[in-house]
Amino acid sequence: MQGKPVTIAVVAPANRLDPALAERVSVLAAEQYANRLTLKIHPQCHLSSGHFAGDDVARAAAFVEVANDPSVDAVWFARGGYGACRILETALPRLTGEARKKSYLGYSDTGSLLGALHARGFANLAHGPMPADIRRQGGEAAIRRALSYLVDRAPDAIEPSAKAAPSVAFNIETLSALIGTPYEPDLAGLVLMLEEVSEPMYCIDRTFFHITSNPAMRKLAGIRLGRCSEIPPNDPDFAKTEVEVAQDWCARAGIAYLGRADIGHDADNKVVPFGNAKLA
Amino acid sequence: MQGKPVTIAVVAPANRLDPALAERVSVLAAEQYANRLTLKIHPQCHLSSGHFAGDDVARAAAFVEVANDPSVDAVWFARGGYGACRILETALPRLTGEARKKSYLGYSDTGSLLGALHARGFANLAHGPMPADIRRQGGEAAIRRALSYLVDRAPDAIEPSAKAAPSVAFNIETLSALIGTPYEPDLAGLVLMLEEVSEPMYCIDRTFFHITSNPAMRKLAGIRLGRCSEIPPNDPDFAKTEVEVAQDWCARAGIAYLGRADIGHDADNKVVPFGNAKLA
Repeated sequence: MQGKPVTIAVVAPANRLDPALAERVSVLAAEQYANRLTLKIHPQCHLSSGHFAGDDVARAAAFVEVANDPSVDAVWFARGGYGACRILETALPRLTGEARKKSYLGYSDTGSLLGALHARGFANLAHGPMPADIRRQGGEAAIRRALSYLVDRAPDAIEPSAKAAPSVAFNIETLSALIGTPYEPDLAGLVLMLEEVSEPMYCIDRTFFHITSNPAMRKLAGIRLGRCSEIPPNDPDFAKTEVEVAQDWCARAGIAYLGRADIGHDADNKVVPFGNAKLA
Repeated sequence: MQGKPVTIAVVAPANRLDPALAERVSVLAAEQYANRLTLKIHPQCHLSSGHFAGDDVARAAAFVEVANDPSVDAVWFARGGYGACRILETALPRLTGEARKKSYLGYSDTGSLLGALHARGFANLAHGPMPADIRRQGGEAAIRRALSYLVDRAPDAIEPSAKAAPSVAFNIETLSALIGTPYEPDLAGLVLMLEEVSEPMYCIDRTFFHITSNPAMRKLAGIRLGRCSEIPPNDPDFAKTEVEVAQDWCARAGIAYLGRADIGHDADNKVVPFGNAKLA
């Protein structure tokens, strides 16, 4: 099937993308979609300013530029780490109607932007693999999955349960940091999928307290748990698994616990289109 | 000066207190206040259930028991760690008018309880040393400071700036987890002192985003920064100190940055009576 041409712009609102990884992603994209796909890696991805891919001004400017660019169909966040929340207050007011027309894909720290855009009614947001995932074992599959979602809305790219019920997905700590701010998304009636990496179990438990104690979150259609990986040891042992933690807080909050979701900080991470995002 | 007799009850809403530490605190209290002070270490402090000083039911029951006990003048939280937030929903509705009459002292994770009690209008809350601090280098001084506050409201025990302006103090992550929940304290018009331990700088930055982006927090009289200790390395280097992080977010939010506060996870930790807590 030869569909319409698609232009994807890559920007880095958090950490820097290594140019060698960007090159590998470009090669893979050209193989997968030949002349149909234009992948524009914004030079901002390779800037470096302390922790970040350029300072806040540079990261906000690159994001606003591609979001408002009518020649771009989708904005693909290069990498997580930390920093997307730092550009919300300056970037969001500069987005135009053009920005609402396109798709956005990312996860981890870039959930700050996805959440804030969802709060502003952006319709085509999705949680899924990013270019930097190519560095993972089996990462090429993650990149192909992301591209097949962005270019074709390929059903195989999508976490199966998200096809059955309007859903969203977030990193646990990233969503927590939006609660009670002007960037908090309204998730009433949606299934919330949560995943985490490198957080001790007591932190996961505390953040489940935070999320499930929020009155708006108690209007969720349910919670699914993605993978919680690379959990550091807890001293003393926490004695509960992440599933037990999720079930415990869901029971306290009167939120349905719906089981696992095939998302996480790994190459198997499936795409979760937000809410009623267009699937075709 | 021989004041009126005082009874202090110690309970552990989070982690367990080692009996040997409890014994050392009891000996020190007897030396400092002879027959004037009755220090009751609740047996719940020594329970063990996974991460916690007994399960949620046991920790909530001990807290409610001493809070409602008319023979107790002050409730002193034994130790932080993690777990106080887990008993809020079951414990708070069981507190009676007796509970409002007494003082509460703790910090770190037990800020969950202090914040939730502040949200319910409890008048005599304070952030300061706990019994488990006796294990620190120079920890006896921290214990004597806490006791001199609880028994005599000794001016030397109090962080100096808190005598000049109504203030509160919290661990950064602990306060963050209350925002947007029914336990979020109303801090409008108060100076907020914040301290942290063992969090990477990017997490401190993210949580400053969370706290200072909350509209209610933008009504603070100002923020003071306590100590941020044992900060693990940030990869890549964060390139900003905790003071620069606090100043940056305060400037963005239009909150006055008022300088440092003599609080933190250490033996020098001074007492911060909340708001208009009685100082005599």
